[in-house]
Amino acid sequence: MKKIKFAVIGLGARGSQLMNDIFTKNKRADVVALCDKYEDRVDKANKLVEEELGHSAFCTQNYKDIFERDDIDAVVISCDWELHIPIAIDVMEHNIPAIMEVSGAYSIEQCWDLVRCWEKTKTPFWFTENCCYGRRELMALNMVEKGLFGEIIHCSGGYHHDLRKEVAFGKENRHYRLKNYINRNCENYPTHEIGPIAKILNINYGNRMVSLTSTASKAAGMHEYILEKKPEDTELVNTKFAQGDIITTVIKCAHGQTITLTLDTTLPHYYSRGFTVRGTKGLYEEFTDSVFIDGKDDKFESEWNQKWGNAKEYEEEYDHPIWKKFVEEGVQGGHGGMDWLQYEAIIDFLIEGTDAWIDVYDAATWMCISVLSEKSISMGSMPVEIPDFTNGMWQHR
Amino acid sequence: MKKIKFAVIGLGARGSQLMNDIFTKNKRADVVALCDKYEDRVDKANKLVEEELGHSAFCTQNYKDIFERDDIDAVVISCDWELHIPIAIDVMEHNIPAIMEVSGAYSIEQCWDLVRCWEKTKTPFWFTENCCYGRRELMALNMVEKGLFGEIIHCSGGYHHDLRKEVAFGKENRHYRLKNYINRNCENYPTHEIGPIAKILNINYGNRMVSLTSTASKAAGMHEYILEKKPEDTELVNTKFAQGDIITTVIKCAHGQTITLTLDTTLPHYYSRGFTVRGTKGLYEEFTDSVFIDGKDDKFESEWNQKWGNAKEYEEEYDHPIWKKFVEEGVQGGHGGMDWLQYEAIIDFLIEGTDAWIDVYDAATWMCISVLSEKSISMGSMPVEIPDFTNGMWQHR
Repeated sequence: MKKIKFAVIGLGARGSQLMNDIFTKNKRADVVALCDKYEDRVDKANKLVEEELGHSAFCTQNYKDIFERDDIDAVVISCDWELHIPIAIDVMEHNIPAIMEVSGAYSIEQCWDLVRCWEKTKTPFWFTENCCYGRRELMALNMVEKGLFGEIIHCSGGYHHDLRKEVAFGKENRHYRLKNYINRNCENYPTHEIGPIAKILNINYGNRMVSLTSTASKAAGMHEYILEKKPEDTELVNTKFAQGDIITTVIKCAHGQTITLTLDTTLPHYYSRGFTVRGTKGLYEEFTDSVFIDGKDDKFESEWNQKWGNAKEYEEEYDHPIWKKFVEEGVQGGHGGMDWLQYEAIIDFLIEGTDAWIDVYDAATWMCISVLSEKSISMGSMPVEIPDFTNGMWQHR
Repeated sequence: MKKIKFAVIGLGARGSQLMNDIFTKNKRADVVALCDKYEDRVDKANKLVEEELGHSAFCTQNYKDIFERDDIDAVVISCDWELHIPIAIDVMEHNIPAIMEVSGAYSIEQCWDLVRCWEKTKTPFWFTENCCYGRRELMALNMVEKGLFGEIIHCSGGYHHDLRKEVAFGKENRHYRLKNYINRNCENYPTHEIGPIAKILNINYGNRMVSLTSTASKAAGMHEYILEKKPEDTELVNTKFAQGDIITTVIKCAHGQTITLTLDTTLPHYYSRGFTVRGTKGLYEEFTDSVFIDGKDDKFESEWNQKWGNAKEYEEEYDHPIWKKFVEEGVQGGHGGMDWLQYEAIIDFLIEGTDAWIDVYDAATWMCISVLSEKSISMGSMPVEIPDFTNGMWQHR
């Protein structure tokens, strides 16, 4: 059996999770190199490799050392958000397949740089938006493709994830999110929502996102939390956070569909991606985990609360084929199995040389929402254009 | 017992409902005049008056005839949307108290006209936004005022009401909504959401809405519905609807809060006003009818679906005092009791001469959202300013 020998750059929460759940568990994966700017993280990860895989990995705090080696099949980039694109470009330029974990971007130029680098080198590249592999996201995609919801008119999503503790209590305040929350005010993490929605609306494949507006509420959640939970950290107590608590972004597509995104990470809320699909014949909605097909149940309109959670009843018929198989064989890995499924696809992609399901154009298009949201907010919610990173190819891809 | 003698202008669905549920049932109400441009509606309403109240009302198809009479205590305006403000102004100029049912406005100028007319005449005026009297809306207001949700940062609401049948099958295509759906593209019905939210965010009382953006999806729902359900109506089948299916409006307030409104009336959806209140310490959300108070229940974040519907558990402690009393005495009237409660307050207001809870400034501020949404959509979602109809008085009212 062919094994993919991974190098992992960035061993914080996300890198560690992938090490534990995927790279030391998947029989087609091996880990040969580890990199993080903090030595303790590298040591911890290498100990795991020794225990689980029975050998040592090459360890470094400088990712460029990886380019000296000839035993690496692919590099996974799971470091600070702002280094994702620069490192991915560097990796592709060294002709090593780049597997880039998610974040938003920081400039439109760097999104173009990423696209140009791939177009020049054609080095295999995959943008690991795991939520594209979510069970409900894929079930909805399957239902959309089967026409159950009619024509799709509107989708919405939200990153409803209370990160106050994570941001405030990151070890030695070194969490990558902290600096972003202090300095920026934008939809800083759009891809968990926009990814699955882009698949449903055929973005970059016959449709594209053309413009957006973004609006930020005041920033109050982090400061109030720190005052209450970490009053001894005088530096953080006196820090003014730029990041608004709720960011609402509204996107318009070439074929008239709209998309609403909500970033919601510094106020109390239950975890949800608020994934919602609205068509002329029906809907799926994550908040109530429910499906409604027009005309199927007359009482649905008035007795909606009786239907909360009814999406479960649709699993047998409409679970996506890859999820059907996954459930039969036993769900594995973190984030409810999404990571496992995606890395299975990535390993297939690396071994078989197929096209990436989530490619460099998707990465640029989804990540640029952060930059454009920042721009729109800074200009009082002005509408801003969304670049066409395919240069017109979306019309016939 | 003092009775208020009402004249009712507009006897379509809304006027008839008020006739049935309130004006012929409330012991402090009487009906002395009826007006509608369609004679059949007037006849039907007068028959009801004869049966229920034992006398005939003055009947006319020209509302100006009402001004000839001296037996009218108040005029209720429940006709086509576009006549609400002109008739309310005419009524106030005749020194007759005006009770104006809800709609959006059609120009900013007419909102100013309404305000100026009231400021000149000081004729009693009430804008009947019944959802301000909703049980959950008032419970949330009560919880906000008691500080349970901390500082309020964001609210959202939606008019999720599948009106395809109503718009397509209005008798002889004379439904007031039809012409609006054919000709306009905007948040055409904002007040059910913005009303309760404005009360929570103290709009016009220490806070105000300063700007908005609005974005429309394509219009597909009505056409597809008519093709399927009313193919014999060739005129409607060939009608192009201007009104987008989903309109998303994002409002920014003077004190940094944001409000999101969704108009959603031509795609399949359950009825909901999507009322959501987000604070630094907790939330209420109508979609799942749930309350979350930070730190009260650790499992809430991950086991959210176990808490769907838990708002009911808060009723005993936090129902608004007027709802506590209402439940004890027996809920009456349409729309779950909201109409009854509001007209009780209106009759008190008319008899006792107190200040209106929903006044002319609220009417202008809430109704102008339709106009500004239309403007923003027509300019590609440009942000537009929201006028201060109080001319600065909001700072100390």
